[in-house]
Amino acid sequence: MGNPYYECPLPVAIPPEKPFLESVKSGIKETFFPDDPFRQFKNQPASRKFILGMQYFAPILEWAPRYTFEFFKADLIAGITIASLAVPQGISYASLASLPPIIGLYSSFVPPLVYAMLGSSKDLAVGTVAVASLLISSMLGKEVNPNENAKLYVQLAFTATFFAGVFQAALGFLRLGFIVDFLSHATIVGFMGGAATVVCLQQLKGILGLVRFSHGTDLVSVMRSVFSQTHQSKRKPWLFWINAMAPLISIIVGSVLVYLTHVEKYGVQVIGNLKKGLNPVSVSELAFGSPYLGTAIKTGIITGVIALAEGVAVGRSFAMFKNYHIDGNKEMIAFGMMNIAGSCTSCYLTTGPFSRTAVNFNAGCKTAGSNIVMATAVMLTLLFLTPLFHYVPVVVLSSIIIAAMLGLIDYEAAIGLWKVDKCDFVVCMSAYIGVVFGSVETGLIIAVTISLLRMLLSVARPRTFLLGNIPNSMIFRSIDQYPVANNVPGVLILQIDTPIYFANANYLRERISRWIYEEEEKIKSKGGSSLQYVILDLSAVGSTDTSGISMFKEVKKNIDRRGLKLVLVNPRSEVIKKLGKSKFIESIGQEWIYLTMGEAVAACKFMLHASKSNNQVADEFGAHNNV
Amino acid sequence: MGNPYYECPLPVAIPPEKPFLESVKSGIKETFFPDDPFRQFKNQPASRKFILGMQYFAPILEWAPRYTFEFFKADLIAGITIASLAVPQGISYASLASLPPIIGLYSSFVPPLVYAMLGSSKDLAVGTVAVASLLISSMLGKEVNPNENAKLYVQLAFTATFFAGVFQAALGFLRLGFIVDFLSHATIVGFMGGAATVVCLQQLKGILGLVRFSHGTDLVSVMRSVFSQTHQSKRKPWLFWINAMAPLISIIVGSVLVYLTHVEKYGVQVIGNLKKGLNPVSVSELAFGSPYLGTAIKTGIITGVIALAEGVAVGRSFAMFKNYHIDGNKEMIAFGMMNIAGSCTSCYLTTGPFSRTAVNFNAGCKTAGSNIVMATAVMLTLLFLTPLFHYVPVVVLSSIIIAAMLGLIDYEAAIGLWKVDKCDFVVCMSAYIGVVFGSVETGLIIAVTISLLRMLLSVARPRTFLLGNIPNSMIFRSIDQYPVANNVPGVLILQIDTPIYFANANYLRERISRWIYEEEEKIKSKGGSSLQYVILDLSAVGSTDTSGISMFKEVKKNIDRRGLKLVLVNPRSEVIKKLGKSKFIESIGQEWIYLTMGEAVAACKFMLHASKSNNQVADEFGAHNNV
Repeated sequence: MGNPYYECPLPVAIPPEKPFLESVKSGIKETFFPDDPFRQFKNQPASRKFILGMQYFAPILEWAPRYTFEFFKADLIAGITIASLAVPQGISYASLASLPPIIGLYSSFVPPLVYAMLGSSKDLAVGTVAVASLLISSMLGKEVNPNENAKLYVQLAFTATFFAGVFQAALGFLRLGFIVDFLSHATIVGFMGGAATVVCLQQLKGILGLVRFSHGTDLVSVMRSVFSQTHQSKRKPWLFWINAMAPLISIIVGSVLVYLTHVEKYGVQVIGNLKKGLNPVSVSELAFGSPYLGTAIKTGIITGVIALAEGVAVGRSFAMFKNYHIDGNKEMIAFGMMNIAGSCTSCYLTTGPFSRTAVNFNAGCKTAGSNIVMATAVMLTLLFLTPLFHYVPVVVLSSIIIAAMLGLIDYEAAIGLWKVDKCDFVVCMSAYIGVVFGSVETGLIIAVTISLLRMLLSVARPRTFLLGNIPNSMIFRSIDQYPVANNVPGVLILQIDTPIYFANANYLRERISRWIYEEEEKIKSKGGSSLQYVILDLSAVGSTDTSGISMFKEVKKNIDRRGLKLVLVNPRSEVIKKLGKSKFIESIGQEWIYLTMGEAVAACKFMLHASKSNNQVADEFGAHNNV
Repeated sequence: MGNPYYECPLPVAIPPEKPFLESVKSGIKETFFPDDPFRQFKNQPASRKFILGMQYFAPILEWAPRYTFEFFKADLIAGITIASLAVPQGISYASLASLPPIIGLYSSFVPPLVYAMLGSSKDLAVGTVAVASLLISSMLGKEVNPNENAKLYVQLAFTATFFAGVFQAALGFLRLGFIVDFLSHATIVGFMGGAATVVCLQQLKGILGLVRFSHGTDLVSVMRSVFSQTHQSKRKPWLFWINAMAPLISIIVGSVLVYLTHVEKYGVQVIGNLKKGLNPVSVSELAFGSPYLGTAIKTGIITGVIALAEGVAVGRSFAMFKNYHIDGNKEMIAFGMMNIAGSCTSCYLTTGPFSRTAVNFNAGCKTAGSNIVMATAVMLTLLFLTPLFHYVPVVVLSSIIIAAMLGLIDYEAAIGLWKVDKCDFVVCMSAYIGVVFGSVETGLIIAVTISLLRMLLSVARPRTFLLGNIPNSMIFRSIDQYPVANNVPGVLILQIDTPIYFANANYLRERISRWIYEEEEKIKSKGGSSLQYVILDLSAVGSTDTSGISMFKEVKKNIDRRGLKLVLVNPRSEVIKKLGKSKFIESIGQEWIYLTMGEAVAACKFMLHASKSNNQVADEFGAHNNV
């Protein structure tokens, strides 16, 4: 019958039933199109819709007509700057992927052109990245030795790139881009750091002029190689020292030095001849019939996801600087197309590397045109300048890789994780340790598993809080957080902090009964008015399922059996709807569901007072309490 | 600088830093010991702790000393009642598991004794269950034909039971019982219904007197068998009709009839000879060296989880009726021990079946002593009465199974799911269809996968709500749920409904920026005062990680760039702690974090008013707003 003394300004509303199809439609929209990418298409004539659609899939159609000479000047400078970075990095990362250096140059020609057509970022510079290169050599190298069976290895790398592209484009088309979000920031910090550590150690091969070297990517085999070989290389100590001191000498100084001194004859490895000419077509190289197809697909999917995570994050960050919007799913389609096209033209996996994009941004690029300039510069290099690279010593490449890698070991970020969130730090360190002592995949899988387990645990074991009244107010807050908050005598106020699902319904039932038990024990031992009401604050319970509804029913049974009364506060629309449909509202009584905690507690206090004064007061006010 | 005009009764509290170890300890306690099973051990002398510890692991030590003659009378009646059910059910379910009928009797002797020692339920009656029996025959039968290779098949069944027990006990010891919760109510309704449908169709074999029959458990092969054989069985039409009409004839009437008419000679299958004597030891039968060990382990784990889900749920339900508490993890240890012991004494998988437990409860059992009575009755049967079972016709067993199965097809529960939660209905139906048209495992895996995906999606795509002011109050609620709620001009109030994690941080950032964009568009098209403040209600954000903190930073940057001001309301203890550690509070300004929405909106309104009147009012009140 409730309590007419405290007038309810508004009862808890049960929102009107939406038609089933409409609610499915809005659910799909919120899930797969949260950024509402087609909002500009609304209320437009068909011809305009066609133009917008073309521009949506190929953003170059949008910016090219408005391209100015000012833009071109800016893009020209930025493009040449990143090309000067693209050539040495391309060669270095290709050797990191155990691929011929020329493939690194090819990979800076076709993919940037494709991205310039389809990509929506104005700042992203396309190119190969160290971590994906390392992953390719680690995963494919396990199956096929790149030195003994070079042709098959290269074919598998193209095939993996093809599948990476297909997977990326599929994720974009199916609007499943959120899968990339499951690689958390902490995972990426640890993973990058671990990969960088391994690469640095591996590059000691180049720096120390070691001849035999492990192809393993784990610390143990790398260190074993280093220690077993430093002894050997002491035979040519002066070369060893030249090599060891060389890391900062630039690629040109290195080449000139080698050219002048001809040290390549004494054991300093140089790149050697690079084939002149543009990318050969490689469609026929895609090894769909190979017995290693499975490995290629696996490599493609893993490297594809890693490359996406970097590319999309980089694109988003710089878009935020310049305050324009990037559609993550559309970017994935662009990356996918660029890699499919790349795999058919002798390129391996490319994405938007952070370093190159930052240089592009700082050099003042205005549009994706800078990628076209870079591609043109690389094209000219391929056509005319490849002979100049003959004398580039491998050690310079190693230095370039190491310099890039050291920037990836972000120990400050790791310290930040430790300070803010210990669990994220554990995720980060397990990714690091997994990569360094296990393999690249091991580290990744461990970190993602820990992250997911943590999420599942937080769903399966949500927190519940005891609320108290903040003095001289109608505000109720957790007693843990606000020690000034006071218990309300005779009333137990609990806050549930999560959607109630099958995964936590049993736990919550047990936990609520423990709260009641503990409160009754406390009253028994310390005295005080006996417990009469249990109020559940449902403000934070966004949704529930049938297991959650069963939990409510069982909690109510349990509370009834103890002679207490259950009161609900502020159930949200989805919860109140389901409580209504399952007849729970009828069984608890609409009048025991309040809009605010203040009202609920006031009603309970009034009832307690009324029952103390032997129901006299209550009768006067016409209240028929059903306690 | 905040706003001195609206006095804050209490600022948002940052709870004091807990020592790292203490917070880990409390986290572990809440996760693995939410029911605080050791609370009675606190502040007790060592000797008392020892006794409590013994009683904890073997609850019989607790109730046996207080056992009275009254209890014994009650348990005796209940025990004999369930024994009269245990014998026919045991034989029937053993044949369902393609095991010799005598194993069904063995399984009602040792496991109930073990459970009586270790179990904490007063009502649970131990025995074999139909679904687990079906699963055993379906999973093991795929590898080994129970007719052609009976000895190996029985060995594998014992081995699977052993591993089921080990897995159950391990889950209990490791306090991982919550894994069972991932089998949601909807999954179990669909799964049971599907299994019951298949079993009923399969039992047509017994009812229709069919000779050859499919061993497949899917609908297609069952139906094919039925149709291909009904023709054949018309050769003995009168037997067919007797068999078809027989389902309700009790096991005794059936046996007497068979004994008197000797129809077994005309094709009615009877159980035949059962070996006299107690369970033979079967430790040496455990096939650890078998090539089918993997299948046995897989079968053990799956049937073990299903059996646990039923047993624990049944135990909990009846404990709730009688208002005593059951520790789910401890029950799992008891189940595990009982199955390990069972596997060594020629028993197959047992748990606490709902039907038998309900009978036990209704017959008025007082303690687990009724299980001992049942075991004694079964022991006497094994020693002296097995010859009586010679003439039990298989058709009676089939009828018993079908009668039990029809109760499992809970179509009313399925209708309830449809009404309350469409998604749960989909889970239920996919479990049903998967079991009926695929296999038992297929159905289970599909249903669990859909449930988990739904949970992940709800974490990755949480809902955000636009809040409005309920007229004549300081209450703010979702405009969707309360259409009377009004927008506050110049202020956008959003509620986030979930912990902010790596899995949803990107989404929330995009979604918040879309809310702002849409609000600005609306103001542009419809007029109204321009947007100045964005208030985020964090009451429902229970926790966050470093990705969540990055989200806050990026949202703030985005809002700053649009010339708006970000205001936070009621951040909870974990969130405010992490915001503090990551210096976000300094960057937003402590004065822009409010304890209640009312205060935050009042402050924004005041500022809007102040800036309108050319900062005069604001200056008068000494407010230096930093908008």
